[in-house]
Amino acid sequence: MRLVQDGERVLLLSPRGKQMLVTIHDGERLHTHKGLIEHSDVIGIPYGSPVRSHTGELFYVMRPSIHDELMGLRRASQVIYPKELGEILLRLDLRPGREVIEAGTGSGAMTMAFANAVRPGGRVYSYDRRTDMLVLAAQNIERVGMGETVTFVERDISEGFLHHEVDALFLDVRNPEDYLESASQALADSGHLGLLVPTVNQIIAVLEALEGMAFVDIDVLEILQRHYKPVPGRVRPEDVMVGHTGYLLFARKIRRAPPAQPPLPEPNQREASSP
Amino acid sequence: MRLVQDGERVLLLSPRGKQMLVTIHDGERLHTHKGLIEHSDVIGIPYGSPVRSHTGELFYVMRPSIHDELMGLRRASQVIYPKELGEILLRLDLRPGREVIEAGTGSGAMTMAFANAVRPGGRVYSYDRRTDMLVLAAQNIERVGMGETVTFVERDISEGFLHHEVDALFLDVRNPEDYLESASQALADSGHLGLLVPTVNQIIAVLEALEGMAFVDIDVLEILQRHYKPVPGRVRPEDVMVGHTGYLLFARKIRRAPPAQPPLPEPNQREASSP
Amino acid sequence: MRLVQDGERVLLLSPRGKQMLVTIHDGERLHTHKGLIEHSDVIGIPYGSPVRSHTGELFYVMRPSIHDELMGLRRASQVIYPKELGEILLRLDLRPGREVIEAGTGSGAMTMAFANAVRPGGRVYSYDRRTDMLVLAAQNIERVGMGETVTFVERDISEGFLHHEVDALFLDVRNPEDYLESASQALADSGHLGLLVPTVNQIIAVLEALEGMAFVDIDVLEILQRHYKPVPGRVRPEDVMVGHTGYLLFARKIRRAPPAQPPLPEPNQREASSP
Amino acid sequence: MRLVQDGERVLLLSPRGKQMLVTIHDGERLHTHKGLIEHSDVIGIPYGSPVRSHTGELFYVMRPSIHDELMGLRRASQVIYPKELGEILLRLDLRPGREVIEAGTGSGAMTMAFANAVRPGGRVYSYDRRTDMLVLAAQNIERVGMGETVTFVERDISEGFLHHEVDALFLDVRNPEDYLESASQALADSGHLGLLVPTVNQIIAVLEALEGMAFVDIDVLEILQRHYKPVPGRVRPEDVMVGHTGYLLFARKIRRAPPAQPPLPEPNQREASSP
Repeated sequence: MRLVQDGERVLLLSPRGKQMLVTIHDGERLHTHKGLIEHSDVIGIPYGSPVRSHTGELFYVMRPSIHDELMGLRRASQVIYPKELGEILLRLDLRPGREVIEAGTGSGAMTMAFANAVRPGGRVYSYDRRTDMLVLAAQNIERVGMGETVTFVERDISEGFLHHEVDALFLDVRNPEDYLESASQALADSGHLGLLVPTVNQIIAVLEALEGMAFVDIDVLEILQRHYKPVPGRVRPEDVMVGHTGYLLFARKIRRAPPAQPPLPEPNQREASSP
Repeated sequence: MRLVQDGERVLLLSPRGKQMLVTIHDGERLHTHKGLIEHSDVIGIPYGSPVRSHTGELFYVMRPSIHDELMGLRRASQVIYPKELGEILLRLDLRPGREVIEAGTGSGAMTMAFANAVRPGGRVYSYDRRTDMLVLAAQNIERVGMGETVTFVERDISEGFLHHEVDALFLDVRNPEDYLESASQALADSGHLGLLVPTVNQIIAVLEALEGMAFVDIDVLEILQRHYKPVPGRVRPEDVMVGHTGYLLFARKIRRAPPAQPPLPEPNQREASSP
Repeated sequence: MRLVQDGERVLLLSPRGKQMLVTIHDGERLHTHKGLIEHSDVIGIPYGSPVRSHTGELFYVMRPSIHDELMGLRRASQVIYPKELGEILLRLDLRPGREVIEAGTGSGAMTMAFANAVRPGGRVYSYDRRTDMLVLAAQNIERVGMGETVTFVERDISEGFLHHEVDALFLDVRNPEDYLESASQALADSGHLGLLVPTVNQIIAVLEALEGMAFVDIDVLEILQRHYKPVPGRVRPEDVMVGHTGYLLFARKIRRAPPAQPPLPEPNQREASSP
Repeated sequence: MRLVQDGERVLLLSPRGKQMLVTIHDGERLHTHKGLIEHSDVIGIPYGSPVRSHTGELFYVMRPSIHDELMGLRRASQVIYPKELGEILLRLDLRPGREVIEAGTGSGAMTMAFANAVRPGGRVYSYDRRTDMLVLAAQNIERVGMGETVTFVERDISEGFLHHEVDALFLDVRNPEDYLESASQALADSGHLGLLVPTVNQIIAVLEALEGMAFVDIDVLEILQRHYKPVPGRVRPEDVMVGHTGYLLFARKIRRAPPAQPPLPEPNQREASSP
């Protein structure tokens, strides 16, 4: 049985699904839409316990997951891709000890997900040219205690990256096709490139730029998530869903560009791509 | 620059996308559809290098990712959910040091993904009642060097789990609704439950069984991945796609069941902006 | 060149995509969010012409399509399925001369689409037990000049249908499984049954009820439409899309129930269903 | 009760879903995979009746729908879009009396669907430059008795269309952007343009070409159909689905190009409610 300690970060979860993330400090108060909660009421109780605000509203005290933290940032900044995130972490093969570059930093949401995946022992180099974004992201990263895993770099990446031999590199910038050469130089051989772009025009531009470069195993995909109402007697998909965040592209770096390939003939027998 | 060492596991990748996973042993030979490759030709060369079979066929020598290993298992057993995997890892909040139960083991693919996510310091308890599956899975796990992170348990889970206070628990069994009580007892407070079922009938059965139990934040979803042909002049989705693997359900354990909630009123406004 | 005549129904379309449907009556005025338009300004001009409100706002005068009329009703009542409609018309094989029953009537949107498809020479029998809905629907149908093709019937369909030997029958009611026997009696042999239900529970209930009945060629499907921003330099799907309206089921009536079939073995080689 | 007449076209439907379309001629025999059926055994029996081959195999004798005929053509030629078809008919507002141009003709499947929608009183002008395709299509159209509704035109449409003032025009050709000017000239004011292209590159090319032309209400969309296994105890989507046929674009012709519009500001709020 784990008890909530002073200084820990907790998630307060209402039965209706409202979520609040807060770092517990003895003596402080949390102001919710449904009344006040004294932090001291939470300290020392087991995780998973109910707690009530001064108006009697019920909340559960939960350990926050990295997904909760990202959703918290998402409510603030809107520039995160939760439905793509699991796939990105998997495809970049991020694990303890790995080094990864990301550009740009944005609100630090992806930074946080990357840092969570490569610690202990790994490192995230997060590039952005905007000081204000870097300051905001650094605050978000410090709040969740991941500061020592991340190096923030204020720099225009059109001048190239300062770090090299990284295991993976993720581009979330306006014109990723302009930075593929720099990305290739920063990646270790056999390293993973990932990027996310919102438009089909950008996917075309990136694919054109990749021709003749030292990347193989190029995969372009998009991910749709469909959530269902969890009511046993009336199970059905939500009426409205996220229709698009962006197109993902993954590729792997080799030591030099492959020889040009004659195109494959169009198959007569259409086959499923791998899922 | 990393050089391939004797005993390492490598991915051989053809320009056409063919993939072969092999553990390098000096003196051995790999038989491909396109000719022989001497393992000794690969030892000592940098990752990302080209290598040719005795018939001149080109391959690249890459470091395998966890995704590659899972895809390799998938080609053998067909019972894996790569498009759901990233989301499962994220939503169960698996990270170094965490403990997770899975049932059943199957070919060990999910076991591998879980072990990769919780090491170092974590542990996977993988339950199955079939000896042959456990033997197969153990071989697959040993091959990728994750044996010390996994405990295999031969047991019918209708008798309950032997491990408790785990951070997460994943059910991939025929009638998950029958094991929710056992799952609840095995999970630590605030722990994460996940399950995957193929049919809508099973989702209904699980949601019914969850009523009155000590779980909150229930989320039912499905994931669709759409892959595109990466040809710059003719970008378009693949003609055929995976239409379904299963429905995912996630929930979080609390210390006791929440009070019954009056249902939310159905919204009057139920249509999205665009037609 | 077609000129707008007094008494005709026109669509006013703004360059931004705003749509207004109006029947032109000399001497009347249309009040838009962007100023007044005199009906007399529209009479006698060619379709496709621009017209300006008294504040200078631009509109185009277009011939309304059946889709425009349905979208107009949709803005008023919210209970229409434009993304399913084309498929429903096709699968019920509605064409001039055919007879079709629908239950319930609702706002008359489906009634309108059916009437449009079966005229000249065909007939729609539209059943509802609510007088107010029938009155509303009749007004909507009269407005588009289809009154003579539709027979409205105020009746609880649990007592059966009054019309028989119809070519097609569409159920859009709460518990369609309760009315399948009546539907079967009303349909001509080889006739088409269609229904739409929002939940998976209802699909299960309907499939159970159909077992042993004289229906074959059962097809359950759902339709997703994904709209794109039509901006040449930034083509991408809309951020938000309709995630669900309902599940469609189609079947065909035969003269008596087929003999029970042994289940097909699950295929080893998974195949695509017909699109 | 309708009885099968000599000379009528029927669908033979097996309980397993096998479909065969045949025109009944007294004295002829149908050779199926499951034995012979004498046409004379079918003549005079009611539609919806069972009939057995000489080996005892069961079939139902059904009236064929236009959808059946299209599916029959599809099995032969693969170049039809049944999941898009209902939407195309609806959006082009095809109904009795309307005139529509299509290019190209292909196997005549779309021609058939268009002819079915505009008769009586309407007309389809179907353009192709390949004599062999026109001959094939004409045979397919004659077989279903729609010959008098269709005019086939052997012509390279880069020289423009011979017919004008048509209500709708559909392009299913390799470079539709090259024919938009001709399409505009052939369409009546307020007429409907539709086209289908497989790649995103083509959608971009068409949208670029439409800029400055006399078209409004441009809508780009794609349609996904998801079919479910109709087994009451195990309802779930088919494992494999059609992932793509093409992108649809619809627009409406006005009398002259609209003035250039300033772009709408990008919305700040771009995320849907659920993650």
